[in-house]
Amino acid sequence: MTATNTGRKRRPGRPAGNSDTRERILISARELFARNGIGRTSIRAVATAAGVDSALVHHYFGTKEKLFAAAVRIPIDPMDIIGPLRETPVVELGHKIPSLLLPLWDSELGAAFIATLRSILTGSEVNLFRSFIQDIIAVEVGARVDNPPGSGIIRVQFVASQLVGLLIARYIIALEPFASLPADQVAETVAPNLQRYLTGDLPDGFVP
Amino acid sequence: MTATNTGRKRRPGRPAGNSDTRERILISARELFARNGIGRTSIRAVATAAGVDSALVHHYFGTKEKLFAAAVRIPIDPMDIIGPLRETPVVELGHKIPSLLLPLWDSELGAAFIATLRSILTGSEVNLFRSFIQDIIAVEVGARVDNPPGSGIIRVQFVASQLVGLLIARYIIALEPFASLPADQVAETVAPNLQRYLTGDLPDGFVP
Repeated sequence: MTATNTGRKRRPGRPAGNSDTRERILISARELFARNGIGRTSIRAVATAAGVDSALVHHYFGTKEKLFAAAVRIPIDPMDIIGPLRETPVVELGHKIPSLLLPLWDSELGAAFIATLRSILTGSEVNLFRSFIQDIIAVEVGARVDNPPGSGIIRVQFVASQLVGLLIARYIIALEPFASLPADQVAETVAPNLQRYLTGDLPDGFVP
Repeated sequence: MTATNTGRKRRPGRPAGNSDTRERILISARELFARNGIGRTSIRAVATAAGVDSALVHHYFGTKEKLFAAAVRIPIDPMDIIGPLRETPVVELGHKIPSLLLPLWDSELGAAFIATLRSILTGSEVNLFRSFIQDIIAVEVGARVDNPPGSGIIRVQFVASQLVGLLIARYIIALEPFASLPADQVAETVAPNLQRYLTGDLPDGFVP
């Protein structure tokens, strides 16, 4: 890699080494994602805050989703999940979502994510988690299950509540035998419930 | 309250004041509950570890469940929930459980519990939470939904995963509009899913 193209806001006295620049971008990204959410944070804004050129942020991190994943230390590209979900019919999402997530969470990559989740849940970074669900997942999936209109975001949030609970019960509380069940059995068990949240009938008066 | 009846293991040099004794009992209770679980911890063992008489522990805290609640700073008696559940037919538990819990969690008492949960999830006290689910809830409810035999504990753990997720999504991540939905709407929405975990068909090969 070659010289960093630092913008005019770069503060004096900081070394221009790559790892320092990369870390500065991540710090700015965490701050902005936490304050404004993912949806209202641009690569450009992160670059400006970090005192670097947008092209450098793209060079280091690629997409905004990848920058977010790096900022919260999620060791995968969210598009690895979001991509396959886009190609899954709505009536199969209830099964597809846990089938994708559980093997990932069970993996070594997942262990790093669980550790991050644990600290996120107790610190101010909980904003980042909220933004991920509201700006990425709700937009991606919520729009496809918005029936009746207005219900999509709430449907997705009920799904999120079950998935977050799975994470906590399986990896943090480590309930047994729950934590040792094969991933596909867990996925099959929760699938109909997730599907009901996504496309099932909701109680009267539910839609805002 | 009168003089504390300290047993022979009471260490020298400690004042015998009530609040000190009470705190010492709670510290011993937390240690033993965390190490051995609620089921294998007796009031007597806690009393011995704290260097006091069992009668004093009963005097201060009443039942073992109440001692546990005090040890983990849950500001209610678990029997306030467990009692009504005992009188609820199994086919109505899916609705009754969230109908009891959500108003409680939404209350001021709940706020204290959420704060405790947050720290429990990141610290070593997670053992206490695990024990509460496995020794109290699994025994109370699991035995009633153990059909086919062996499935009861897993059914309860899936229920726990959804309930813990509700807690996190509503109170810690504070997803909106999810966090602002009326408690009864949330309860009605999750009820059929909890009921399915408790009494519905499970995937083949699920029962250990």
